Formats: sequence, structure tokens, C-alpha cells
Amino acid sequence: MTQIPEQMTAVLLESYEGATGLRVVQRPVPQPGPQDVLIQVAAAPINPSDLSFLQGRYGFQKTLPTIPGFEGSGTVVAVGRETGLMGRFLLGRRVACVTQQHGEGLWAEYAVTSVNYALPLAGAVSLEQGAMSVVNPLTAVALIDSAKKGGHKAVLNTAGASALGLMLHRLGQQEGIEVINIVRQAEQVTQLKQQGMRTVLNSSSATFAEELSDLCHGQKIRLAFDAIAGETPQRLLAAMPDHSRVTVYGNLAQKDVALNPGGLIFQDKSVDGFWLTRWVGQKNFLQSLLMWRRAQTLLLSALKTEVRARYPLAQAPQAVAEYEAAMSGGKVLLVMGE
Amino acid sequence: MTQIPEQMTAVLLESYEGATGLRVVQRPVPQPGPQDVLIQVAAAPINPSDLSFLQGRYGFQKTLPTIPGFEGSGTVVAVGRETGLMGRFLLGRRVACVTQQHGEGLWAEYAVTSVNYALPLAGAVSLEQGAMSVVNPLTAVALIDSAKKGGHKAVLNTAGASALGLMLHRLGQQEGIEVINIVRQAEQVTQLKQQGMRTVLNSSSATFAEELSDLCHGQKIRLAFDAIAGETPQRLLAAMPDHSRVTVYGNLAQKDVALNPGGLIFQDKSVDGFWLTRWVGQKNFLQSLLMWRRAQTLLLSALKTEVRARYPLAQAPQAVAEYEAAMSGGKVLLVMGE
Repeated sequence: MTQIPEQMTAVLLESYEGATGLRVVQRPVPQPGPQDVLIQVAAAPINPSDLSFLQGRYGFQKTLPTIPGFEGSGTVVAVGRETGLMGRFLLGRRVACVTQQHGEGLWAEYAVTSVNYALPLAGAVSLEQGAMSVVNPLTAVALIDSAKKGGHKAVLNTAGASALGLMLHRLGQQEGIEVINIVRQAEQVTQLKQQGMRTVLNSSSATFAEELSDLCHGQKIRLAFDAIAGETPQRLLAAMPDHSRVTVYGNLAQKDVALNPGGLIFQDKSVDGFWLTRWVGQKNFLQSLLMWRRAQTLLLSALKTEVRARYPLAQAPQAVAEYEAAMSGGKVLLVMGE
Repeated sequence: MTQIPEQMTAVLLESYEGATGLRVVQRPVPQPGPQDVLIQVAAAPINPSDLSFLQGRYGFQKTLPTIPGFEGSGTVVAVGRETGLMGRFLLGRRVACVTQQHGEGLWAEYAVTSVNYALPLAGAVSLEQGAMSVVNPLTAVALIDSAKKGGHKAVLNTAGASALGLMLHRLGQQEGIEVINIVRQAEQVTQLKQQGMRTVLNSSSATFAEELSDLCHGQKIRLAFDAIAGETPQRLLAAMPDHSRVTVYGNLAQKDVALNPGGLIFQDKSVDGFWLTRWVGQKNFLQSLLMWRRAQTLLLSALKTEVRARYPLAQAPQAVAEYEAAMSGGKVLLVMGE
């Protein structure tokens, strides 16, 4: 076991202003509480949910300053005295991890989280892929499961050039559900078709509304997943047949959802929301374990994430700025030391 | 059986402009088709759904000019040759009736509708109460049923000074569900409390948001029925605890529903809609019959409607204008002849 130093490099959010609210500092390495593990962090992605948090728009806020970063990977280097068998099993192992709502995040050389939030990585999964094995993969699993439970054969997804868009499409293929991604630029249509998607729509096209309506009525598409909010849910519902629903899981537009009341009343259309944290919280231990094992087996195929850029921790503000400027076309990853 | 004349007085909608689009004319009395009945109309209310239709904002439009009026009462004076036993039973009887989507309405001395849309009135129910025995009473039955199915002990309702608000409250009492009405004027709070409602909130009050939030969290109220649309569903959801839903059944504000995406995503809040026509369409014949009999027994108590003004058919445009100006405080009724 390597020696644990006294000090570490960490990214600190000092104000809810996105990249400009971040500073790279030296801090004491944290001590794990009785039911925690200490992780030497290897890598952590910048996800849309991280951006929301940095901008103060997430489901909760923390007292500032705090270390951000909802997910990552690393090696367990110390365990709390009440972690029992699980702690002994995890010590020295490579894990994927997520942070607790009341703890600090993973954009640091070391991080503490609950023993329940450290998930052992299968041997074939690299630390880099493992760093991105919770938020997007489990969101894809959850959304495809909800489509399956509702008996949907085809669904829409917006902001479709994202890492999640590709995962949804691949996982949907395995489950017999066609995920039709909607993107905002013509080049993204070409890119996604090159990745094997048969139908990709461009919401900036002049013929979008008509194409979408033909598609939805032709294939009886009654479920859409939306990452954008603002005007988008209504644009989707307007094109979809009666009894359709839009599930909002992101707020990229940072605008209120505007809905036509006539659609709600006379066409039985509806809108709800999805949050991974809530969905996971509804699962018991066994369900979580099975879900995790299933996601692990898919990490090298359907749930693989493309990385477009890697930054050292010291350049985290630049990394976040790059991701803020372009959230599609591969993940931006923070990589901690060698 | 009284002689059926050749001509009748009827109200005609010539343009989708509300009261100003109406004209009173003489028209031939219509002939019932093979599966229709001809009704000598006694009375017909002006409902919010009629106003929506007159303004071109309803779930469907008809080719103009057309006779409006979705519900009413009267006596069956002729039946089509394929109406069978039901037709023979109905001939000469007092009925409540609603119009078909593709037929003309009830604001006339005579009207034709499907034999299935004429419902015999119980002896104790007057033609006046019978004229208002479908739209509001069955909406109240449907909404209270949905609250019951969802296990709700208390629900909110907006535009609560309406005829429906009172029905919902009374029917809720019978079913063990507290309906808390929200009104828009201080005087309406006093009026509704005089009618036996314990809690009535005024959305124009400066302390409304706080009171509503205390109430909803204290009583764990997670369902609201909304007749207003626009900003109202979001005001309700903001005050309600996580996992709450607003069912929109009216669009009095004539404005898009604006929703906070964070509430949808992080708090599991949602919005859907209710339309009586769809709800009734989902029932089979036996369910409809049982529902109708139940509503009839309640027409003299929980589902009784107050009438504030009666107008002859010739003054229908004035009647509609009066109702447009004040939609609460009792129904405005059109009364056809003696």
C-alpha cells in the first residue's frame, strides 16, 4: 500500500458561477469516518449534472467552498472502522464511486465517500471507463427500463449527440427499443449516422416539426426523454400523438418548460421528470447490486463512453470551460497524477 | 304528444369570438337520423367548456355556422327507426342530453343527438337541474375517483368558487377526501366558508404562497386540480411536497403552462390533463349506466347546481356575455319557452 500524504491537490468551488467559480488549491487529505472509505482518485468526468451544480442549479446546493465532482474512479487506500467485511473486501481495490449529498466531491487527489458508494470494478474495466460508469450508464439503464415497462417500441431523446444519447441508442437496441436521437446541428446528424443510428433528426432544420410529426404518428411514439427543457417538451408533445409523455431529465436551456394547456386537457399529454439519485434511492441493496453488475458487463459495449480530452487536476477550470463550450462530441475527463 | 313545428328558434355561432360571434335565428327543426332522438329542449347551461368552444379554444372545432351548447335537458319527441327498445323507452320521457362531436348543440328549441347520449332523468330531478347533470357532476365524480384511486386524503382545486368547486367539495366529503378550494377574491373566501368549507385559500392574498405551502406540507397534499393554466400549476407545485401532480382540466388564463424544470427533475413533480369526453369514452356501457345512476342520486345533494340567472333563448348573446364577465357565483341558464 502506498503512503498517504498529508496534503493533496483539490479543485474548490468558491461561488456558483461555473468554471469561473473554481480554484485549484492544496488541502489536507481527508480522514474517512467510521462507515467511509478513502479513495485515491484516478479520474473523474465532467458531466452535465456537475455543470448544473457548479452553476447552482442542481437539486441541492452545498455550503461553499466545496470540492465538486459527482463521480469518478480510483483505489481504496483506507477504510473506516465500521465498514466491516465490505471495507476489508474493498481495501486496495479499484472502484467506481459517487459522492454523498452531504460530503465533498471527487475532483481531488483523494476523496472520502460512504462504503456503500464505492463499487468494485470488474477486471476488464479500466479506471478511465470506470470513472464514467455510474451517472450516464445507470441513467441509460433507468430510462430504457421505463420505456420497456411502458411497452414502448420507440422513444425520442433530445441533446442526442451527448454520451448519454449514444448509450441510450445502443442499450435500446439490445432491449428491442428504438431510441431516436434529436440533435441541434446538421453535422451531428452525420456523426450519429456514422455511429450506426438509422434515424437522427435535427431540431434546427426547417422541416423538423413535420418530420418529427410524421415519424411519431407513423411509429406511434408516445414517450420522449428531454435534456433541454424550455420550449423543447412542447415541441415534442405537439408532434406526438395523443396520450404522449415527455420525461425531462436535464435543463440545458435553463428556461421554464412552456406547455400548451389544450394538449394536456384534450390530448392526454403529460410531463414528468427523472433524477438518477431518486431512482437509485428507490432500489434495495440486491436490486442495486444486480443493476451494477449488469451495467459493468455493458461498459465495454453499449455503455462505453468516448473521451475527447483529458486534463490534469491543475487545469480543471480550463477543462470545465471547454466542456461548457461544447457538451457533445465526447467527455472531458480530469486525470489525477500518474 | 305535442305537434312538432317546422321552424324553431336557435342560437347560431357564426365566428369563434365568444358572445359577439352569436346570432339568434329561425331554422328548420332537424330530423333525427336512424340512431338518433329528437329532443324538445327545456334548458341548457352555459359552461366553461361552452365558452372555450365559442372562443375556438376547445378540443375540436366545428364548421361554422353551428348551434353551440354541449349539454341540456328536455323531452324526447321523436326517435329514429334504428333506436330499438331504447328509443321506445325514451319516447315521451324527460332526459338529460349531451351533443355528439359531429352534431349540432342544444341552444335551440329542438335538437338531435344519438340515442346513447340521452339519459332518462329520475322523477325527483327537475328539468332545470337535469340540464346541468352531466358536465359538472360527472367531472366531479371523475376527479374525486382519481383522488381516491391515488390514495389522496386531501386535494387542491383552483377556480374554486365555480359550480364544480362546490360539487367537488361536497362529493369529496362523502368519499372521505378533503377538497381545498382556491379562489381569486377575498369575498369568495367568505362565501365558500358560509357554504360549509373549512379551509379556503385566496390566491390574490400576499400570504398565499406561504399558507399554501404550510397546508400542503402539513397535510401531505400531493394532488391538485387546476382550471386556470398559465402560471397556476407552477404556483401549486412550488407549494406542494415532492412527488406531487397537477391535473389541468381548464384553461381560464388562456396562457401556456410554465413549469420549473428543477421541480420536474429533482422533486418528481408532474403535470397531466383531464377531459371529461375522454374519461367517459373509456367507460363501457355498464360502467356508464352505474355512474349515471349514482350521479342522479346525488343531483339533489352533493351535485346540486345553483342557478343565478335564467335567460330566454332570444337573449342568449347577453346571457353568454354575463357569464363571460363572471364565471363564478352560480350558473347562467338558457330556458327554452314555457
